[in-house]
Amino acid sequence: MSPDAYADSLVRRRTEVLGPAYRHFYEEPLTPVRAEDVWLYDAQDRAYLDCYNNVPCVGHCHPRVVQALSEQAGRLNTHTRYLHEGVVAYAERLASLFPQPLSRVALTCSGSEANDLALRIAQAATGQTGLIVTDFAYHGVTLALADISPSLRQSNAPHVRLVRAPKPFGRATAADVAARFVEDIQAAARDLQARGFGLSAMMVDTVFASDGIFPDRNGALSAAAQAVREAGGVFIADEVQGGFGRTGDFWWAFQREAGLVPDIVTMGKPMGAGHPMAGLVMQSRLAESFGREQRYFNTFGGNTVSAAVGHAVLDVIEQEGLRERAADVGDYLRQGLHRLAHEHPGIGDVRGLGLYIGVELVDATRHGTPDPQLAAFLVNALRRAGVLISVCGRDANVLKIRPPLSFRREHADIFLEAMADALAGAAARAPA
Amino acid sequence: MSPDAYADSLVRRRTEVLGPAYRHFYEEPLTPVRAEDVWLYDAQDRAYLDCYNNVPCVGHCHPRVVQALSEQAGRLNTHTRYLHEGVVAYAERLASLFPQPLSRVALTCSGSEANDLALRIAQAATGQTGLIVTDFAYHGVTLALADISPSLRQSNAPHVRLVRAPKPFGRATAADVAARFVEDIQAAARDLQARGFGLSAMMVDTVFASDGIFPDRNGALSAAAQAVREAGGVFIADEVQGGFGRTGDFWWAFQREAGLVPDIVTMGKPMGAGHPMAGLVMQSRLAESFGREQRYFNTFGGNTVSAAVGHAVLDVIEQEGLRERAADVGDYLRQGLHRLAHEHPGIGDVRGLGLYIGVELVDATRHGTPDPQLAAFLVNALRRAGVLISVCGRDANVLKIRPPLSFRREHADIFLEAMADALAGAAARAPA
Repeated sequence: MSPDAYADSLVRRRTEVLGPAYRHFYEEPLTPVRAEDVWLYDAQDRAYLDCYNNVPCVGHCHPRVVQALSEQAGRLNTHTRYLHEGVVAYAERLASLFPQPLSRVALTCSGSEANDLALRIAQAATGQTGLIVTDFAYHGVTLALADISPSLRQSNAPHVRLVRAPKPFGRATAADVAARFVEDIQAAARDLQARGFGLSAMMVDTVFASDGIFPDRNGALSAAAQAVREAGGVFIADEVQGGFGRTGDFWWAFQREAGLVPDIVTMGKPMGAGHPMAGLVMQSRLAESFGREQRYFNTFGGNTVSAAVGHAVLDVIEQEGLRERAADVGDYLRQGLHRLAHEHPGIGDVRGLGLYIGVELVDATRHGTPDPQLAAFLVNALRRAGVLISVCGRDANVLKIRPPLSFRREHADIFLEAMADALAGAAARAPA
Repeated sequence: MSPDAYADSLVRRRTEVLGPAYRHFYEEPLTPVRAEDVWLYDAQDRAYLDCYNNVPCVGHCHPRVVQALSEQAGRLNTHTRYLHEGVVAYAERLASLFPQPLSRVALTCSGSEANDLALRIAQAATGQTGLIVTDFAYHGVTLALADISPSLRQSNAPHVRLVRAPKPFGRATAADVAARFVEDIQAAARDLQARGFGLSAMMVDTVFASDGIFPDRNGALSAAAQAVREAGGVFIADEVQGGFGRTGDFWWAFQREAGLVPDIVTMGKPMGAGHPMAGLVMQSRLAESFGREQRYFNTFGGNTVSAAVGHAVLDVIEQEGLRERAADVGDYLRQGLHRLAHEHPGIGDVRGLGLYIGVELVDATRHGTPDPQLAAFLVNALRRAGVLISVCGRDANVLKIRPPLSFRREHADIFLEAMADALAGAAARAPA
């Protein structure tokens, strides 16, 4: 069977057995068979530069992580109802990466489980059910989280209120953006109180990835936390996207605002560099109110293998200086993208922090309206050129660029060159 | 530090960092450091016979599973938005283990995620929210599942109705037990309809583990499925406890009733022998109704490593004849337990199927009322003797015996001897 015929048959078999709820990337789906560092390879050994996957944060198939996984899986794989040094030590190490009083850890298998558990903890602490999220948020796949993930499906849940993400608008200053965010939150909280739901929590993706990537240093998170607490709610920072050094310098994206301490911080994707592990850290009073009435056991969450993998991932991030690299290479990438923006009016904005980067595409001939067609063209052109990215945002017009943290300047150069070619191709494609 | 002092300090550190919602087993918690087949070992290299853990279904640290995990983790660990032969082939293989028309697969990280997704699928199919479960069920840790897990916390959710598990009572025949179960379900469905929730689904643990272990061949599941469908609901078989050959002969515990085909079957714990993976299989019409309006993506669920591990687990179950062994050794264990029951009036019932066994403990001097004190005494006495089991049931008086499927008759003999000693110790402990 030719490679193309095989890919076609695999798509058919996949659709047959996994059904229509599963989607795939790209007009020509990718069929990788191996990966290393920032490169994916298909069966013909063609290399693809990975500028998209944040899960393998230390680089694909990092030998140290694979070794930790293999050794512990061969030695002992049990759960948290037995005592184990590795699990306790990992939880202690994780807690030490947070400002006080964030000190209690719960371990799960996925960011969805962590976010869902955060909602349970907030309900136990407040006795309320009302929730506030941004209006194109994504927080996970459980029934409770689907209700607060408007990017996944429209929410009709009566206990949920949506607010606008802190997106720059018009000539607004950073303070204006934060102020509008807070006003929206206060109005939502008042409405939830009036309808009898009360305010249980606000959950925010700290880089607002699904909303379109807005990790600005505008004080919006701190202002939101204060407004939420004044309304009696719990402020939950969802660091599944932004955590583990992704935004450079800091461990957690919320730390770009000095002094901010969320009530609960959830985390996931990069935590095990692909091994299914996630969790949360909470202030101790929340652990007490939750543990008083409820117990928590997660069969796989915090098992001995996950702890070993989690340790290895932290080791690599620290020893290879990946947070510092994310800051440096992220800046370098944005500089290159700004240069491209000067030449290409379709690039309406370049933003981001560390290695979480958004490039907003607009139709300059139509007053800068969103241009999802250009975004789709570029994503697929780059894929054909061997460079992998994706899109996000309500209008599907923001390129999402979020490579493994082991991404170097030389990789950034490859991306920028391919991006320049793709933009040239887009310009040549259509009459101006 | 002495081993005891170390265990004490580890308990303190664990309580400090994980908080009060995490519990552990046994008066003297176990601190295993390695494991192999059906044996756990502590730091002093003392061996403990594992008669409890169903997750490492092929035996702890099975070399074939560890090898599959290590090799795939070193080669490629990506998600379902790329194409991959291993993932599609695993889903196909899994579907082939079910009767038609159970043909569509979704892959998750945990049984909780699988059960929660099943609720979403049922809601999409029925447009209703009402749910029926047994009155001491456990189905998982998410917010939605906590509402239908009365063994975890009391449910006040207005859309949930509890029914009695199909437990033998008085002189009831098997048909009587099934009939009472159906009557309860029909009444619950009528009430849900009357209150405007309608019936979305009934979810049943097919071995009724948390309720006290009732995997009888009494037709209760088939009768329940019919009643649920007649009321417009989806019948969800939760095979997280009963699946993957646990009950002997069959792959799935529901197959003890010929001809029964659930609408959705969920699975988890043993699926990856400790690797965090789970999933569900559904009838294709449900995949269509769900996929029409919703997409599903699970970051780690169905990743390439999970697929490799899942294949290896199925290989071992098939090639080492573990289903047949579960049937044989399970019968052998129950025979031994019945012999002990003749000598010890505290054993009120011995039941189970394959290697899922319950031993109900009662106070024979008090008209056979539940005896949780005896259960706790035996569990801790066995632990001191180097044999691991636990308890279940509303009254915490049912010994839960559910070893890895690689458990042999020689291991059953060790367990039975320790059990005889523990029962003798219990008899000597208190005045008759």
